[in-house]
Amino acid sequence: MLYDINEKVIKLENEGKKIIKFNLGDPFQQTPEEIIEAAYEAMRKGKTKYASSAGERKLREELAKMHGVSTDNIVITAGSKWGIYAVMYLLLREGDNVIIPTPRWTAYDLTAKELGARIKLIRTELESDWRLEPSEIEALIDDRTKLIVLNNPNNPTSKVIDENIVREIVQIAEDHGVRILSDEVYADISFVKVKSVLDMSSNHIVVRSFSKTFAMTGWRIGYVIADRELIDKIIKLNQITLTNIPVFIQEAALKALELRERIISRIRREYLERAELACKILSDTKLKFSKPEAPFYVFPKCDGLDSEKFAFELLDKGVAIAPGTAFGDYKEFFRISLTAPEEDFERGLRIIAEAFK
Amino acid sequence: MLYDINEKVIKLENEGKKIIKFNLGDPFQQTPEEIIEAAYEAMRKGKTKYASSAGERKLREELAKMHGVSTDNIVITAGSKWGIYAVMYLLLREGDNVIIPTPRWTAYDLTAKELGARIKLIRTELESDWRLEPSEIEALIDDRTKLIVLNNPNNPTSKVIDENIVREIVQIAEDHGVRILSDEVYADISFVKVKSVLDMSSNHIVVRSFSKTFAMTGWRIGYVIADRELIDKIIKLNQITLTNIPVFIQEAALKALELRERIISRIRREYLERAELACKILSDTKLKFSKPEAPFYVFPKCDGLDSEKFAFELLDKGVAIAPGTAFGDYKEFFRISLTAPEEDFERGLRIIAEAFK
Repeated sequence: MLYDINEKVIKLENEGKKIIKFNLGDPFQQTPEEIIEAAYEAMRKGKTKYASSAGERKLREELAKMHGVSTDNIVITAGSKWGIYAVMYLLLREGDNVIIPTPRWTAYDLTAKELGARIKLIRTELESDWRLEPSEIEALIDDRTKLIVLNNPNNPTSKVIDENIVREIVQIAEDHGVRILSDEVYADISFVKVKSVLDMSSNHIVVRSFSKTFAMTGWRIGYVIADRELIDKIIKLNQITLTNIPVFIQEAALKALELRERIISRIRREYLERAELACKILSDTKLKFSKPEAPFYVFPKCDGLDSEKFAFELLDKGVAIAPGTAFGDYKEFFRISLTAPEEDFERGLRIIAEAFK
Repeated sequence: MLYDINEKVIKLENEGKKIIKFNLGDPFQQTPEEIIEAAYEAMRKGKTKYASSAGERKLREELAKMHGVSTDNIVITAGSKWGIYAVMYLLLREGDNVIIPTPRWTAYDLTAKELGARIKLIRTELESDWRLEPSEIEALIDDRTKLIVLNNPNNPTSKVIDENIVREIVQIAEDHGVRILSDEVYADISFVKVKSVLDMSSNHIVVRSFSKTFAMTGWRIGYVIADRELIDKIIKLNQITLTNIPVFIQEAALKALELRERIISRIRREYLERAELACKILSDTKLKFSKPEAPFYVFPKCDGLDSEKFAFELLDKGVAIAPGTAFGDYKEFFRISLTAPEEDFERGLRIIAEAFK
């Protein structure tokens, strides 16, 4: 569904129609200039050669320091998505299964299914503030369960998992010898504090990215934090696939880390303002939703809504959103990305709100 | 072995020793300035966002024109290595087998083995000018044979496969319903004309790269040419793995194509001069070798040589080469890369030659 909507958007744009895009998770911000300059400088210095499949030592060291792990626990990947693929490719065998709470970003089950694994979905509900029930996870674990996927903060709900819930899930995972794959790509710019699974145990796997935190989506750079054995296997997989992430891109990422505090506080503030404006505009409608605890999304519900139909109708009014069905069995929901361009942002939200007055 | 030598090289360099590196296939040339400027300009124009998993339309169109195929037959990949991985991942199942002539670049069988396929190797010999016997390929085909890998021109021999041999192999492949995966990354800068499998049939698969042709190894950009069905599957695999190759890198590649004639003729000439110098220096020894028909390598033989032992001994003299065992059962051979820096090139070759006077 995400792709169908986007194809339609591209078609309409090619016909010359203006579409306000709330359907994608690509930041409105440009990559900060200092980051671009760092990449350029590195290219000019000849950092355009084959390099380590683990990633540049300096970058891995900085990330290790940041996360309180050893350099050997970090591998640089082509975005967090490559990290997720590599972890699943290495840990899942045909017939294994993966537990995934919903609503969820589709890449998790697309990847797991592609690799021959079965998916066990868990529902969370707006009515209980998207609370994840550890006991429901435990009930689904069997001897072929290899991974529990957490997305913290969550896409599309922008909900942060409560620290105690994370702790309970970690305990359950350890009791059953199952590993958690925690996708924490929105954690750095979250509005509320995020407790990582790594704060509780070093047995689990975290994927992170520069994409959202530094407006670097198209650069394709992220990393995996895990035990050394798994990291070594990912490095070996990188050797026969990616070879290396371009060193000039890694130098850009290093510059991003150097400017981290400043960039993050600006980006977080910009999304917080947008989230507040969105809540204000939408609260004056019959839509129900939880207040985002992190960028980039609001995931409102309208009782009885057919969100796929609504998505196409809204396109005729020049606004694109993502129907809830793209994230699981959530037909009455839709996802609004807070990433639309500045000049259209408020107007687009008002067009959405108008449909639910 | 390649990795062991390289680890030792890094260790010696860290100890402050100077090593002349003939062991790697990374060009001595810098990426041309115009290509770097094109990447920089694209970054500054905001081409840093998520993009198509197929690759940018304009780049695919240019490549399609160049190869006389349709745009739908081209997908942009993270170097040719990702192309090889994707093709093998999509076409090989556990228990299938792949026919690979030797000497060969190790990535083919590392990847095929990683995916659970069996390898059937064919020997070619210096004494018969590395001639590939189509009948030997045919004899190895069984009902689980899925791919025949050709590397044309070949790494490490720098031999171009004779046009008639390519035609015979294509015919055999078609008779048996087997596909050819032809790695032609050295073809653009070959000293003699290379006949592609695609010149004879559109049923096969070609991987190409910007790495060698434009001194862009670390940028990680290449492409696959194949039938639309396979290309669509690679695009789908890209969607759950790479997402996209950074658009600014694709813009750099587009600039490279624009300057193609000029860059290629310079790079080819530089390697031709180096190949001639290497042949001249080595011909005055007891080494036997075929004259390179393409960059980057010479693959000489010394009867009775233990090339692994020799490689380590040579390191003590400050020169690194790759032992023949890295490319198959070729213990008496070693590979010299013509990619060492200008100022050390001749001196390094003379040190090697000295060992075989």
